Amino acid sequence: MEVSKELMLRRHDQIKPFIHNTPILTSSFFNNLTGANLYFKCENFQKMGAFKMRGAASAISVLTEDQKIKGVVTHSSGNFAQAVALAASKMNIRSKIVMPENAPSVKKNAVKDYGGEVIECESTAIAREKMAAKIVQDSGATFLHPSNDLDVILGQATSVIELLNDHADLDYILTPVGGGGLIAGACLAGYHFGNNCKVIGAEPSVADDAYRSLQIGEIQMNNSATLTVADGLRTFLGDINFPIIQKHIDQILLVDEDEIISAMRMVWERMKIIIEPSCAVPVAAVIKNKSLFENKKVGIVITGGNVDLGNLPF
Amino acid sequence: MEVSKELMLRRHDQIKPFIHNTPILTSSFFNNLTGANLYFKCENFQKMGAFKMRGAASAISVLTEDQKIKGVVTHSSGNFAQAVALAASKMNIRSKIVMPENAPSVKKNAVKDYGGEVIECESTAIAREKMAAKIVQDSGATFLHPSNDLDVILGQATSVIELLNDHADLDYILTPVGGGGLIAGACLAGYHFGNNCKVIGAEPSVADDAYRSLQIGEIQMNNSATLTVADGLRTFLGDINFPIIQKHIDQILLVDEDEIISAMRMVWERMKIIIEPSCAVPVAAVIKNKSLFENKKVGIVITGGNVDLGNLPF
Repeated sequence: MEVSKELMLRRHDQIKPFIHNTPILTSSFFNNLTGANLYFKCENFQKMGAFKMRGAASAISVLTEDQKIKGVVTHSSGNFAQAVALAASKMNIRSKIVMPENAPSVKKNAVKDYGGEVIECESTAIAREKMAAKIVQDSGATFLHPSNDLDVILGQATSVIELLNDHADLDYILTPVGGGGLIAGACLAGYHFGNNCKVIGAEPSVADDAYRSLQIGEIQMNNSATLTVADGLRTFLGDINFPIIQKHIDQILLVDEDEIISAMRMVWERMKIIIEPSCAVPVAAVIKNKSLFENKKVGIVITGGNVDLGNLPF
Repeated sequence: MEVSKELMLRRHDQIKPFIHNTPILTSSFFNNLTGANLYFKCENFQKMGAFKMRGAASAISVLTEDQKIKGVVTHSSGNFAQAVALAASKMNIRSKIVMPENAPSVKKNAVKDYGGEVIECESTAIAREKMAAKIVQDSGATFLHPSNDLDVILGQATSVIELLNDHADLDYILTPVGGGGLIAGACLAGYHFGNNCKVIGAEPSVADDAYRSLQIGEIQMNNSATLTVADGLRTFLGDINFPIIQKHIDQILLVDEDEIISAMRMVWERMKIIIEPSCAVPVAAVIKNKSLFENKKVGIVITGGNVDLGNLPF
């Protein structure tokens, strides 16, 4: 399916009342370190602290009046849970968020604070899918997937549209690759709004499912035995975002766990901003591949800042 | 001595090439929490990570050509050390920074990275003063005091001038009170550039020297037996900044250690910015004194973001 530039612009306009046009920071420290000119699109300053707000707002904004009355449901214990709760509240729509009963209470409370209803279930993938399906069946609510949904992808794309609006001549745009919603959106935005701008994904070596998926040409899973510190990137691609990524992505770069942690710490120490481990993955990729990015203008999407301060990796 | 508005404007122009006009952030979370409209002037994004860059640049910018040739010296293991090193480098002036031999190597390296020469001495107040005096005598270098120097005060004032340039109708401006350079600068800026703007200092209860100094009318010291977590505020006022503060300040508010730590953590978690414990002192003061600030426009100077990530208070 083709996504037009006009559709992307219309969707951006539609969600503007519900999102921040986040600041784009530069850092002479990181420019000196990498030899590149880096532009950090700071979605950690987005409403609820992550780019997921864009995708949730986009998906909810296109519901029919009947769907809006029946509400939305998702299952997540991460940023998408909070994003759906907040975006739904802002549009006066009810949201039910299925969360594992052993999810940290701080996460459950965040969803409640944003106006979402927390529905607890057993802590298994099957249990949460069953619970979400039951809610859909009982209430007619619309299920929202965090990444494998074209409307979510169109929302995530708006972060890169804003980046290219301010810096039209970027040579590269990097994002982390988790479920594939953001990188697919970046691919579409780079294609329609960039000027020969290459879109590159960054993945932890121990969660290189997207890297392997592109090599093999079929969606691959991660080996769950080794968990990356970038907890937002433990998921895998879906049948809607994978073809978009296959068509438009330049390449995926892999980085090791110590490189992720080191890059995260440098961003905290030198840029004075709180970023999640996932955001450090593309930063580490630029540091690791100096010759590729030297003297280039490089946009990096800093995806979010919701970290557990009691459990830092350094 | 009277400080004119024209002098303050001239000095601001003079140091603009050496400083950032730092961003002013708002937070719907903190506005809801306090009932006030808060404007955070983010000096944690200043060059070298703290407002001290302004004072150092100001004091160095007014040296005579002869003084510039002979260089500058200060003793500090904190932000002023880095500020003098960086500001001097940018003006092609030599700087010698006297630091205790047991200062963390990360701090010594930061000074060296900014182009300063580290001179080590024993870890006592007398030893460092003697060493600085010896350097002045031997080399003719100019000694720079971090807070009790009118040129430093005029530099620190520029953060509040910028705040009032963007928000002329602030009802209150709050800064932490350490050595008195920033609060004195804020007093002068509030007086000349504000519109009936009241300047309030915030101090830890366990380091309430400025609060007591104002009550008694003479400069008081802190009891060094109990150290506040706000390590930038363990110093005391000086004979140059104290009269300015006495003349213009509205009041000083005190906050407890747990209130400082809680406010610091909330800023990290909700605003996604790294702030030093000292910055959390005025934030805690606004949270603690809701009725005073309700429905008011309140500027808060976030003084810096240089923290030891390996030694957080939460």
